[in-house]
Amino acid sequence: MDCKAKAYILSIGNELLIGKVTNTNASWLAQRLTLLGYCVERIIVLPDNMDDIVEEFHRAVSRADLVISTGGLGPTPDDITNIALAKALNRELETNPEALEMLKEKYAKRGYPLTPEREKMAKLPKGARPLPNPVGTAPGIMVETDSRLIIVLPGVPAEMEAIFKDHVEPILKSRGRPYFYREKMIRVKGVPEADLTPILRRALKIDEKAYVKSHPRGLEDGVPVVEIHVYASSSSEEEASNIVDKVEKFLIEEIRKTFGQSASISPLN
Amino acid sequence: MDCKAKAYILSIGNELLIGKVTNTNASWLAQRLTLLGYCVERIIVLPDNMDDIVEEFHRAVSRADLVISTGGLGPTPDDITNIALAKALNRELETNPEALEMLKEKYAKRGYPLTPEREKMAKLPKGARPLPNPVGTAPGIMVETDSRLIIVLPGVPAEMEAIFKDHVEPILKSRGRPYFYREKMIRVKGVPEADLTPILRRALKIDEKAYVKSHPRGLEDGVPVVEIHVYASSSSEEEASNIVDKVEKFLIEEIRKTFGQSASISPLN
Repeated sequence: MDCKAKAYILSIGNELLIGKVTNTNASWLAQRLTLLGYCVERIIVLPDNMDDIVEEFHRAVSRADLVISTGGLGPTPDDITNIALAKALNRELETNPEALEMLKEKYAKRGYPLTPEREKMAKLPKGARPLPNPVGTAPGIMVETDSRLIIVLPGVPAEMEAIFKDHVEPILKSRGRPYFYREKMIRVKGVPEADLTPILRRALKIDEKAYVKSHPRGLEDGVPVVEIHVYASSSSEEEASNIVDKVEKFLIEEIRKTFGQSASISPLN
Repeated sequence: MDCKAKAYILSIGNELLIGKVTNTNASWLAQRLTLLGYCVERIIVLPDNMDDIVEEFHRAVSRADLVISTGGLGPTPDDITNIALAKALNRELETNPEALEMLKEKYAKRGYPLTPEREKMAKLPKGARPLPNPVGTAPGIMVETDSRLIIVLPGVPAEMEAIFKDHVEPILKSRGRPYFYREKMIRVKGVPEADLTPILRRALKIDEKAYVKSHPRGLEDGVPVVEIHVYASSSSEEEASNIVDKVEKFLIEEIRKTFGQSASISPLN
């Protein structure tokens, strides 16, 4: 896979580690980042615990160009992502006037007082920028350090998605050259996954920008069904499309040639 | 939280990192492990890449008592978890006679030949034990090293769940004392999450075996709704229940006392 840059996603929250909540935030973000040309190299789910958050921010920033976290931005005692990020970056935590203004405005509208719990959400690492939250109250946080970009988002999916679409996506699009992700899915009925392996192995060698992966889908009418996913990312839209088309064509021809009538092949998109 | 032992979950597969698939395997496993008394400290999603898998197995084994991975056990070229695990443990990879027998039997029944791609699934790190797969073909892998237990499962959810229920759960139950997890969920309507914070902070201090976390659920009839999750784990079933009851009682009483009629409280389970 060719990529614009490497990304790490940090998903903060005990509810994910006890299996109370499925990590749909991470798959949503992973899909968006992939479409923007990023290679997501890790998704790390970690507890609401200072040392763990500091450690994983530290590790992520030392390895990835882009680090996006979700969770731990609210007013409750276990919302400590802003503090942990400041520690990880070795920066002071300070009340950001712009973030404070955002909170004041929100709470004035709702008629709630600005308590210390609420003011906590305006504390950002020195040099950080708040990202307005069009759905909830806690602003997101953006920090640049050397050439790395760190984006901190709330864990509530609607808030996370809104901040990402309104404020993060435009920033990521403006960084570096645009990238294009293209994919195809082929469904093969009648051939066991293992027997497709020699063909998959050759398909993987066609172009290093392409990735090919098979997913067994069990039996249908007593015969195996396998879906093959082909995808590529490139700074040229045409190239990304051509690579995926070329690999798809190769797969269909080789499967037909090898298995004849016993393989029923259908494109899925 | 009190725990029987620490667990790491490794989710292997590019499809998770491009957001094609949501990681339901990890939340399913996390829930099961929590109920068995384990503290899941990380869920790490990583690519189908040798160096990454070796690195994360290495890190997980050095930190957790139990490491469970999913994905990368099939017959295709990117299924390399068995090889990576052997490397991470610095053990030889060898054909396991028991695993080979399992595969031979499966394929004989289906009338498929035992190709090299299929035989690959019988290669386990030296000293490992295959776990029969009642749904698919690739056996799971179990390795003990010092006091650590490593369990490697396929990525197909039905296969992963079946091996876990049939073979892993009984082993985990037999290790150490039994543990009991208890939880309660309270729904509070009419109080913003931030105003509950001082009460949550005190609730967290009632018992170190208990954990309390609030989840904002947006507005209903124009007023905020917050769900509060209380849970505890203990080697005594009675203690786990008592702790959760005590914390729930405290929360309900304090919220009533502080917010009176403006708070509407209902238990969710």
